[in-house]
Amino acid sequence: MTAYGGIETGGSKWECAVGTGPDDLRAAETIRTTTPAETIGRAVAFFEREGPVEAIGIGSFGPIDQKLSSPTWGHITSTPKPGWAHTDVGRQIQRRLSVPVAFDTDVNAAALGEHWWGACQGLETFCYITVGTGIGGGGMAGGKLLHGLLHPEFGHMRIPHDRDADPFDGVCPYHGDCWEGLASGLAIEARWGHPAASLDGDQAVWELEARYLALGLVSVLCVLSPERIVIGGGVAHHEGLLALVQRDVLTLMNGYLEASAVVDDIAGYITLPGLGMRAGVLGAIALAQTL
Amino acid sequence: MTAYGGIETGGSKWECAVGTGPDDLRAAETIRTTTPAETIGRAVAFFEREGPVEAIGIGSFGPIDQKLSSPTWGHITSTPKPGWAHTDVGRQIQRRLSVPVAFDTDVNAAALGEHWWGACQGLETFCYITVGTGIGGGGMAGGKLLHGLLHPEFGHMRIPHDRDADPFDGVCPYHGDCWEGLASGLAIEARWGHPAASLDGDQAVWELEARYLALGLVSVLCVLSPERIVIGGGVAHHEGLLALVQRDVLTLMNGYLEASAVVDDIAGYITLPGLGMRAGVLGAIALAQTL
Repeated sequence: MTAYGGIETGGSKWECAVGTGPDDLRAAETIRTTTPAETIGRAVAFFEREGPVEAIGIGSFGPIDQKLSSPTWGHITSTPKPGWAHTDVGRQIQRRLSVPVAFDTDVNAAALGEHWWGACQGLETFCYITVGTGIGGGGMAGGKLLHGLLHPEFGHMRIPHDRDADPFDGVCPYHGDCWEGLASGLAIEARWGHPAASLDGDQAVWELEARYLALGLVSVLCVLSPERIVIGGGVAHHEGLLALVQRDVLTLMNGYLEASAVVDDIAGYITLPGLGMRAGVLGAIALAQTL
Repeated sequence: MTAYGGIETGGSKWECAVGTGPDDLRAAETIRTTTPAETIGRAVAFFEREGPVEAIGIGSFGPIDQKLSSPTWGHITSTPKPGWAHTDVGRQIQRRLSVPVAFDTDVNAAALGEHWWGACQGLETFCYITVGTGIGGGGMAGGKLLHGLLHPEFGHMRIPHDRDADPFDGVCPYHGDCWEGLASGLAIEARWGHPAASLDGDQAVWELEARYLALGLVSVLCVLSPERIVIGGGVAHHEGLLALVQRDVLTLMNGYLEASAVVDDIAGYITLPGLGMRAGVLGAIALAQTL
């Protein structure tokens, strides 16, 4: 039976899988992200072992070049991750495994996964946002994945930052206190001195985090008017956080936009991924099937 | 020869026109916005006099209901403009003139106009932003006008607001210091005590305005990744303002996103409408032709 390959490339690990969807995952492997040569080599070895596959979808950390007409299509471009700037991922996988490759951002892949099998089935305009080590966003508008000039970079929006209440400068190497700089997992750890996962009981941590996440979501809501906002990633899964974010978005919108989807069902409007932590790699398998 | 009608409904005036495009405008009239009954009556009279037309496009101030399946399609919904909340515009025009009507936001209409005849020809993903009495935004993603849950409301994003430098509270009745609350024409007049047009020589006014506009544009850029950003409206046409905005966007992005369209040609990337102040009404005529 036909199988497809999916790769979710992340800054700390790559998730590789073979199958056709959430109910048909035949093989999966997590590879630690080291050097490009070693990491890509291990992914290639996985598909040589578990294949053959019809096509491979790659959802990648970025920024990336996903323009088909570009000579550097398939590259990770100006990432600050040491050793990874301007790395050819897509073409190399395509060449070494002799299969067609679909290449997009990790968040667009996850959005496609949610559209096919998860929380965004039947919707035409929605976002998938990940809040983990960093913050990224993708999604669809009018039934098409968001591309444009390059691709969305939700994490680098500026949001209000009250330095009296939170004097922390932010961790973004480019912008300091952009959304990612203030609200990513890395920001939480740098501000409070402990990783997010170990700050469970500290309500001040999560009240501030919810406030920042809500401020960014309001911008997303105002620019894209999504029918639903899905938030994945390790930080987003912190218990109780989403309810605080939902509350703060309603407070910030303050009754503007009489959309019953937002006002009457905020818990359905801002939601966790239907596919959980597998949205990315499953979305990559979906991407492969769009070729 | 076939003709189409276009209406740009604004809070202070309605622009009505008959024709097929910028080189074929056969009649035009500006109607002062008074009560709904009187204003709509005058628009109907204009088309009765200057018609017949095949169809009419309406680009309206909002928020509006443009969902075809909705029972209140064609309505202006929760606008704070006195007398205009929950006003049926689209269906009434359709019924009284017995013609098909296309109904969208003023900024989406203008975006379509720019796409057909102006600064966004050949582009699939771009925005049209108006900075006048208020701030609004629309555009296309993947070749389709931005809709979604409702429609974009760019003006109500939150942006950083340094109250030490600018203690002004903002003028938005819902949010105080959202983008529109800080940077619209109404905000300029309230902050400085004079209308924007009479503050030409005051560099501090325009430096602050450029800073706020750039902060909002960065969010638009990060969410939508537009191939071009067109800024229309009375405030945007202030001489020299756009150059300051372009400079501030580059400063804020700080080298993130190596897109030559942004970095090497910022003056072409953030630009005035190709159709000037007629983008809205011409876009409405384009809308009519999409039916």
